[in-house]
Amino acid sequence: MTPQSIIGIMGPGDNALESERQLAHALGKAVAQQSWVVLTGGRPAGVMAAASQGAASVGGTVIGILPDSEGTNTAIGVTLPIVTGMGHARNVINVLSSHGLIACGLGLGTVSEIALALKAQKPVVMMPHNFLAQDFFEHLAPGQFYMTDDVKLCIEYLKSVLPNQ
Amino acid sequence: MTPQSIIGIMGPGDNALESERQLAHALGKAVAQQSWVVLTGGRPAGVMAAASQGAASVGGTVIGILPDSEGTNTAIGVTLPIVTGMGHARNVINVLSSHGLIACGLGLGTVSEIALALKAQKPVVMMPHNFLAQDFFEHLAPGQFYMTDDVKLCIEYLKSVLPNQ
Amino acid sequence: MTPQSIIGIMGPGDNALESERQLAHALGKAVAQQSWVVLTGGRPAGVMAAASQGAASVGGTVIGILPDSEGTNTAIGVTLPIVTGMGHARNVINVLSSHGLIACGLGLGTVSEIALALKAQKPVVMMPHNFLAQDFFEHLAPGQFYMTDDVKLCIEYLKSVLPNQ
Amino acid sequence: MTPQSIIGIMGPGDNALESERQLAHALGKAVAQQSWVVLTGGRPAGVMAAASQGAASVGGTVIGILPDSEGTNTAIGVTLPIVTGMGHARNVINVLSSHGLIACGLGLGTVSEIALALKAQKPVVMMPHNFLAQDFFEHLAPGQFYMTDDVKLCIEYLKSVLPNQ
Repeated sequence: MTPQSIIGIMGPGDNALESERQLAHALGKAVAQQSWVVLTGGRPAGVMAAASQGAASVGGTVIGILPDSEGTNTAIGVTLPIVTGMGHARNVINVLSSHGLIACGLGLGTVSEIALALKAQKPVVMMPHNFLAQDFFEHLAPGQFYMTDDVKLCIEYLKSVLPNQ
Repeated sequence: MTPQSIIGIMGPGDNALESERQLAHALGKAVAQQSWVVLTGGRPAGVMAAASQGAASVGGTVIGILPDSEGTNTAIGVTLPIVTGMGHARNVINVLSSHGLIACGLGLGTVSEIALALKAQKPVVMMPHNFLAQDFFEHLAPGQFYMTDDVKLCIEYLKSVLPNQ
Repeated sequence: MTPQSIIGIMGPGDNALESERQLAHALGKAVAQQSWVVLTGGRPAGVMAAASQGAASVGGTVIGILPDSEGTNTAIGVTLPIVTGMGHARNVINVLSSHGLIACGLGLGTVSEIALALKAQKPVVMMPHNFLAQDFFEHLAPGQFYMTDDVKLCIEYLKSVLPNQ
Repeated sequence: MTPQSIIGIMGPGDNALESERQLAHALGKAVAQQSWVVLTGGRPAGVMAAASQGAASVGGTVIGILPDSEGTNTAIGVTLPIVTGMGHARNVINVLSSHGLIACGLGLGTVSEIALALKAQKPVVMMPHNFLAQDFFEHLAPGQFYMTDDVKLCIEYLKSVLPNQ
């Protein structure tokens, strides 16, 4: 009954690379296996879809924060669709509702979420390693995020920084 | 793994009457006993708090859509706090995310939610019976809502109108 | 250079009656003639459109708070379109940005705005006279709004309650 | 009466450098001298405040999109405060309402706005020159923004890309 930890998994939608989808699937599964709730952008595309399916494959709870106002266009695996009708303003909800965030790949929407998450002092993991992003965000928020290619290390990092673990 | 039905329970916060709190507690419990998810405004006040606790008393899942940006001021019983930082704009999310809504008592915030729910063609139950509200909303949205004093009849009505029941 | 008073004119969109459109046009004109800024929901429909055109007919400034994310579907007369991409959540912005609000006719969206405006303790005028609305809102917010059929009386009331007039 | 072009000037708030404030003041003035409307985040801090005052110094119109719900804490020079009560979600409104955006300095909030503006295919100017930002955003949105240290060149660029100039 205690609120569970909620981990946001963010990343490109329609333009996601196949490698990013595979990583997102593994991340969704690994986060759910910690009994953490997965939170995604909810749409049936790219990283959102893959992370939701990964979590669902092990029976995880998946919150999908949907940009549209219908609630019908939802990724498979989302167990709790939250319908905002607010377009990209829902990115703010993604960030504020997550106790920690994983950026899996880098689209422009993902960058907006990383920036807001760092501003809100949330734990952030960026995957996979990206030197341009590392240099850019290290300049803006030194020491405030973790970068790795490895799902296990990502989970270990989140366990070390989340409250009540 | 199929998305569950989500029932919003709305009503006055700090100004809620004791009778409204008791009704909200019974509603939260009855909704959760249907294996439906309860959605509330999330704050530890009035109808939101009572409905959340009622659902929690039988192990229900409770989504709390919070108006502030911190996520710390949450009603007991909320299992999944969604942090919006959007004040009353979160009322729209309450409405759009619910497959059906129960208004338990009438505050001004509740009236804004009833109006938006009727506009979005959602099933709406108003409790307890209120003749001013009945006349007013019957004029605006004839035949679109149900009014009762009885928790069982409320649940029966929702079962009859929700998809996939 | 001092911020001007902003008066929101709210009302039905596509379902507005011809009489409501005519009243909205007269209201837009009368508000602009006070050198007040008119704020509407911005879409080219019903009361929004008529109030914008009325204000524009005397050279007034018209802010249109648009629900969509494009900013292309705008009422004639809107001089400053604000593009929210937030659907009905923009109703909250309409209310909070207005120093006073005029509800011209009653749709469900308008009711949500009246309720939020009364909750935010904004001056509210409802036009034309509607006894169901009077009884309903008088019960919820006694003495907090003014109801009239007369444009001049509406303006006089706003002048008496707006700060800095 | 035709809608005017609206140029958003974004940048750090409380942490803005003195050089960024001076640049923002010059930008606000130069944008207003084109008879363009200036749009800022509205708060009395940093780049928002300086751009608003620069525009006001030549009689410009300044829209301030405020994050809080009160509308009282507004930068000097803002002629039209829009009160959102939506915190950082108002960043989306800043972006969607602007026909072109100037990022003056780089805070995390500014980065979120640059990313959303590029995603929405808006013209973006970044000032002053910043090689980390250039490399990072050139990778994400090649050829989609302009970077300069010079106010005149910024204005020339916007004139070349805005519709109806």
